[in-house]
Amino acid sequence: MNGAEAVLKTLADAGVDICFSNPGTSEMQMVAAFDREPRVRPVLTLFEGVATGAADGYARMAGRPASTLLHLGPGLSNGGANLHNARRAMSPMVNIVGDHATYHRQYDAPLNSDIEALARPHSVWVKSAESADTAAALTAEAVAASGGPPGGIATLILPADTAWTEVKAQPSPSPPLRRAPLPVAGKAVEAAAKALRAAAKPVLLLGTPAVTEQGLRAAGRIAGKGVRILVDTFLARQPRGAGRFAPDKMLYFGEMALGDLAGVDLMLLVGSRTPVAFFAYPAMPSVLVPEGCKVETLSALHEDSAAALEALADALGAPEAVAVQGPLLPAAPKGDLTPYSIGDSIARWAPEQTIICDDAVTGGLPVYMQTRGARPHDWLSLTGGAIGQAIPLAIGAAMAEPERKVLSLNGDGAAAYTVQGLWTMAREGLDVVTVIFANHAYRILNIELSRTRAGNAGPQARRLLDLGDPRMDWVSLAKGFGVPAVRATDAEGFDAALARGLAGEGPMLIEAVLG
Amino acid sequence: MNGAEAVLKTLADAGVDICFSNPGTSEMQMVAAFDREPRVRPVLTLFEGVATGAADGYARMAGRPASTLLHLGPGLSNGGANLHNARRAMSPMVNIVGDHATYHRQYDAPLNSDIEALARPHSVWVKSAESADTAAALTAEAVAASGGPPGGIATLILPADTAWTEVKAQPSPSPPLRRAPLPVAGKAVEAAAKALRAAAKPVLLLGTPAVTEQGLRAAGRIAGKGVRILVDTFLARQPRGAGRFAPDKMLYFGEMALGDLAGVDLMLLVGSRTPVAFFAYPAMPSVLVPEGCKVETLSALHEDSAAALEALADALGAPEAVAVQGPLLPAAPKGDLTPYSIGDSIARWAPEQTIICDDAVTGGLPVYMQTRGARPHDWLSLTGGAIGQAIPLAIGAAMAEPERKVLSLNGDGAAAYTVQGLWTMAREGLDVVTVIFANHAYRILNIELSRTRAGNAGPQARRLLDLGDPRMDWVSLAKGFGVPAVRATDAEGFDAALARGLAGEGPMLIEAVLG
Repeated sequence: MNGAEAVLKTLADAGVDICFSNPGTSEMQMVAAFDREPRVRPVLTLFEGVATGAADGYARMAGRPASTLLHLGPGLSNGGANLHNARRAMSPMVNIVGDHATYHRQYDAPLNSDIEALARPHSVWVKSAESADTAAALTAEAVAASGGPPGGIATLILPADTAWTEVKAQPSPSPPLRRAPLPVAGKAVEAAAKALRAAAKPVLLLGTPAVTEQGLRAAGRIAGKGVRILVDTFLARQPRGAGRFAPDKMLYFGEMALGDLAGVDLMLLVGSRTPVAFFAYPAMPSVLVPEGCKVETLSALHEDSAAALEALADALGAPEAVAVQGPLLPAAPKGDLTPYSIGDSIARWAPEQTIICDDAVTGGLPVYMQTRGARPHDWLSLTGGAIGQAIPLAIGAAMAEPERKVLSLNGDGAAAYTVQGLWTMAREGLDVVTVIFANHAYRILNIELSRTRAGNAGPQARRLLDLGDPRMDWVSLAKGFGVPAVRATDAEGFDAALARGLAGEGPMLIEAVLG
Repeated sequence: MNGAEAVLKTLADAGVDICFSNPGTSEMQMVAAFDREPRVRPVLTLFEGVATGAADGYARMAGRPASTLLHLGPGLSNGGANLHNARRAMSPMVNIVGDHATYHRQYDAPLNSDIEALARPHSVWVKSAESADTAAALTAEAVAASGGPPGGIATLILPADTAWTEVKAQPSPSPPLRRAPLPVAGKAVEAAAKALRAAAKPVLLLGTPAVTEQGLRAAGRIAGKGVRILVDTFLARQPRGAGRFAPDKMLYFGEMALGDLAGVDLMLLVGSRTPVAFFAYPAMPSVLVPEGCKVETLSALHEDSAAALEALADALGAPEAVAVQGPLLPAAPKGDLTPYSIGDSIARWAPEQTIICDDAVTGGLPVYMQTRGARPHDWLSLTGGAIGQAIPLAIGAAMAEPERKVLSLNGDGAAAYTVQGLWTMAREGLDVVTVIFANHAYRILNIELSRTRAGNAGPQARRLLDLGDPRMDWVSLAKGFGVPAVRATDAEGFDAALARGLAGEGPMLIEAVLG
């Protein structure tokens, strides 16, 4: 067994069963090792941002890490934007980054760079396996580190000679796949209950670790006691739709969020952090807590928020019954194609257990609103703000849940970043319907330009926010990567296309032409 | 004048006249500022790897830095692979990376990350402009730092509040655009001449700084004294073709390079470094210097290699006349389409002063060989080994030299990384013919798999190196981004398509189907 095989065996022993891969020469031993370790499935992507985004999507749905195989510093860099999103989603992930042979690094060959420095900002754990005998133990360490809690990115650097050298030592035993979140002390629950009872207008703010089926149900019970429940604007995953408790969501723009929170005197954080504006703007607040509002914490990111919510519900004497969202299946939309009509169509056709990956930017919120009473589904948000996530995320989600349908919602500007992911959907025959919100602009930036008080857009500025010259032809792009595609220009056309796409098997793309 | 305007004015004053841009909210002031600073042309790209690769291509042809505008840590990461190539090309470049407002960083909003840490591995200079009053002076510092010598990447972090705040201080005067390389001492030239005379079988190894028109001519004179002239395998730019001195090139694979160098007793480095293998392989040498061969240096990377070569030629009493490459215009190729027949067609049709950007991987060397006697042209190599360079590089080269034709040579696997660059070619109407070497595989990796002794490829390994399931349809992909395209399946068809593409105006893509 060589070092590469030891890495792969350790991953498999720890339950890591997939590796989104973009290998190069320094990763050839890993490539060859896949044939000797059938428990880890390699999936080829054409660009590392697809690999890291897919690993994120896989982790969000499977609840355990996926691995990636990346080619030295440049491969890791290419994966950086979706590593950033995954870090913000607290998704567990194990990157295997090939490197030059240990003795070769000193010569600073063309592909040499400081991989550790590039990995550190994204990673909770970075180490290099400097010999074959350390490879298994460090892989086990990496998997354990990625589990947190909360989850994070572990990056193992694997020099080529470590990979090709025979292992002498016996591999160390596998780590538990993921440590459970720490329990919240009873005292913290009591304190929270007391504070809630004393407050005139309290809210709970739930972050990703709190927003599980169990956590949401408990929050719904607490809502029954008259406490408003909010969730973070961008959650890694939110179970929602008919039959589930439907919390409100923190609004994106700071002044609107503060307006919505007016009069709140207690904000209780549950697996979340003090809310802040996504961006700063001249003369606008950074922290989204109203004046005079106290901020308390029920559970930190690494703690068991769902159990804490249940304990809190009990402490408050909350009823067992929860007021859940009723079904809201809209009528067939007609006329102009808009994000709202798209949302209506999705609510009409998305089957139970659909996974929705949202990188639709300005189009996302209308769809979110229109699908509040759709069949039960999971909504996966853009957690780190680095656009180009929804195509890769959908790949990972579809591979984690092959029996479920996946919808990938993309702004046209966002989709262009990781368009190569369509090829992997075609190659793997994934049940993903990719929707492109083709408004031919970085629409959000037209809003942001005015909010940042940068002045009226002149012709140069306008051109920098415009994607209409030329218009991208998404039907051709999809075809180029092997994904069947159609263009919809009105609500009826989109509705029919989506119904067809969700009824069929394998990937499909719909270019939704918005004006 | 706000901080953003001060940055842009300083760039313009220093002669930086283009900015490859991927802006987001934190860069809105820069976006607005372009309309008030007409001397800097903003060019929109759909992905940051296109922006950084284009800046590299611009610098290689214009001999001065381009700037980029990138969106926080994720934008910088996305640009990382082509920053790596640019660093290895010693291309001057100035990155402006937007950041959160200084006072907002402490809240660790979703897009927050350690930008400085991410920039450092690529950059010779990284600073953050923490106030509007420092913006101009730091921009000037950045431009100066990028100039070297040798050239490098300077990264200026520009927080949003720096950008939107009015400047009180007077901007400092602009720096000289680029410092000249340092002269080589006469003593070093004399020592080199003496060593060459004493050697039985000497070679000169020229790196990027030495391979200018002037440097090549002087090297050709030295060749007239019986000294073999070699150049690095991957040069940022090589003027070549009929009428120019044609040095040999260091071979890519180490054992072949060493075979080629057998018996050499002196290697004189001219703007280069001791040659090393691109990758390490089991039981293969890292350093490509034959046993018993002395390595001496005429000029370091930051010194004036071309002038040193002239002085050395004089010291050796070399003739003025140089044996140059004669014209070699092949007959029309027939039959199978191969990298050789493609090279023949390029030699036949590329007009004088064509710029060839090579990321064709296994296809590159055959084209290089077949074009040795083509009309005078420039050849731009993949300097850092991070594939996905030739489409972006061609954009920058075409914008630096709008009167010249540009050829972008791409492996299909390589082109998939930065395919979005085709859109910028269409948008800007660039005279670029993009050739895709469609062999439906990471062909080089099939070779590397055996060289790394990773064993025979099993089905999983084969699938990780295969791009044929499904085949990418490059005609559709190009059409999707607004670039006219044709498919060629035989040598005659490619020859006709290339002739048409080079005779026309604006971008065009040819999918060259290789088996």
